[in-house]
Amino acid sequence: MNIYEIAELAGVSIATVSRVINDSPLVSEKTKLRVRRVMEENDYTPNVFARGLGLNSMKTIGLVCPDVADNYMARAVACLERDLREYGYNCILYCSGYAWEDRRIAVRTILQKRIDALVVIGSSYADDDPDAERVEYIREAAKQVPVFLINGYIRGENIFCALCSDYEAAYSAASELLRSGRRKILFLSDSHSYSANQKRSGYEAALREAGVPVREDLVIYTRNRIDSVRDLLLEMPQLDADAVFATEDGLAAGVLKYAKRRGAAVPKDLAIIGYNNSELAVCCDPELSSVDSRVDRLCKIVIDSLKLRLNGKPVNDRVYVKGCLIRRMTTDF
Amino acid sequence: MNIYEIAELAGVSIATVSRVINDSPLVSEKTKLRVRRVMEENDYTPNVFARGLGLNSMKTIGLVCPDVADNYMARAVACLERDLREYGYNCILYCSGYAWEDRRIAVRTILQKRIDALVVIGSSYADDDPDAERVEYIREAAKQVPVFLINGYIRGENIFCALCSDYEAAYSAASELLRSGRRKILFLSDSHSYSANQKRSGYEAALREAGVPVREDLVIYTRNRIDSVRDLLLEMPQLDADAVFATEDGLAAGVLKYAKRRGAAVPKDLAIIGYNNSELAVCCDPELSSVDSRVDRLCKIVIDSLKLRLNGKPVNDRVYVKGCLIRRMTTDF
Repeated sequence: MNIYEIAELAGVSIATVSRVINDSPLVSEKTKLRVRRVMEENDYTPNVFARGLGLNSMKTIGLVCPDVADNYMARAVACLERDLREYGYNCILYCSGYAWEDRRIAVRTILQKRIDALVVIGSSYADDDPDAERVEYIREAAKQVPVFLINGYIRGENIFCALCSDYEAAYSAASELLRSGRRKILFLSDSHSYSANQKRSGYEAALREAGVPVREDLVIYTRNRIDSVRDLLLEMPQLDADAVFATEDGLAAGVLKYAKRRGAAVPKDLAIIGYNNSELAVCCDPELSSVDSRVDRLCKIVIDSLKLRLNGKPVNDRVYVKGCLIRRMTTDF
Repeated sequence: MNIYEIAELAGVSIATVSRVINDSPLVSEKTKLRVRRVMEENDYTPNVFARGLGLNSMKTIGLVCPDVADNYMARAVACLERDLREYGYNCILYCSGYAWEDRRIAVRTILQKRIDALVVIGSSYADDDPDAERVEYIREAAKQVPVFLINGYIRGENIFCALCSDYEAAYSAASELLRSGRRKILFLSDSHSYSANQKRSGYEAALREAGVPVREDLVIYTRNRIDSVRDLLLEMPQLDADAVFATEDGLAAGVLKYAKRRGAAVPKDLAIIGYNNSELAVCCDPELSSVDSRVDRLCKIVIDSLKLRLNGKPVNDRVYVKGCLIRRMTTDF
């Protein structure tokens, strides 16, 4: 049962339902009684919608991300803040760090700030399973305000997700590497987030489809960046790869430095694909091929959904955007 | 006349003065009367301090920067937000853009949000002249809440500034280039901000001291980055430089690309120094020498000052931090 059905059953507009929830003096006692009876009869919890309709609003949106110094998240925050400000909303920013408990605290804390909606940036807030118990805190939050996820999928009422199709992008990048003759493709990741897991699944699917075995020794996880990635790989003399698919440009930049130190020609001996198409990709020499994960587009979708939602209109609970490989000098196809 | 003197004259603590300003029921009417009389006799305007002492507080700090997608500002926001959160404060973020009028609107808007203090990030909010009329809006803001500037200097009551000594850093970088035999040093800047102007003054001072003429054709301003900087320089066939001092790493990365395209050996034919010591500097090949402008240190200083100020303690109105050149592969000294 949602606010639209309540409105229909009670024979009033959704704005009136919202006003009843907020006990607005603009609604007659008679109407209030009727609407409340319909809500009770249908076991409708009004909290979910009480705030979302611009009544009693502080005109404030909560933004939560693990780390705004990360280029991807900085771009997202900049884009969201600018568009929300133009729309008359201020942003409260909370950077949670990556630990699960800290993410939970972040969401709980920011909800106390009388926000109209919550935007959660980065797939580390989601789980591979959209129904997982460990993301229950997001569903709890969505009982108070609409929640918008950038690049993660959590199933639940009042939760709206905009995602890059990382599985397809990774599948397609790995397939291209395979078509160009590579057989030993290293998967290099900085995270076990929803998005990173999607990328790994896409990579593995491409390998399986090409009849190439998925090798555990060609899957590496590290939180290092650039120089430290180079050093990490240099310390693995047994490493034998002819291509690298990295889930982030900072990793790929480190691979490039590793290749140079090892005297491996790029892309001939070692093809490299990064992810996010950041400024780092253009700074590298040779310039890095990288998957554009369309963060600006995801933000635009969230802004559009948020405007619809705050006006009481229906919103898709999930929108996918296609990532696309930007070919530069570290690939030869 | 400040709050400490009022407290002394009235024979009460500054906390009591603050409570009187906020008309707290914790203070007796008799004491209120006495404190108010001292304030009146000394023509003391309480607004400046009314909020800073944690009474009637929303525990919220306003952060204003031109663009959080900029690496320097993202690092500052991440650092400030983390430390303020640990200290029990939330952050409202407002990105103003670079236009003067937009910066003014940003400060005016965020002041309406019941913030306890305002932190202004980036030297584009300051002026070369710390007493300039055009930064009066910052002094106006400081009448309502304490204002903290990261890397700018504005003189005024209740304004506290943490700065990198950009003049000295630029002077020292240019001097090193001169000592290594360079005589045609290009100054490349993306801004006319307070900080950029300090850098230019330091650069010119080093040249003058070495008896090398300051040439207008060796001073270039551009808002471009990386590839676009390369293209801009390639379109200047008359350009004749043996070194470049860039006010930002994104510019220096473009110079490196230009050198490569022109077949100039780096650093032999063209030495390059960037600024901010960002990840871009490490991504470049050869890695970029860059001045570390100590943004994390500046943030720590602001946090410490802010804690003191919000506890009614005296704070230095200006603290300088030394920038230092990180020598990598684009210089040979």
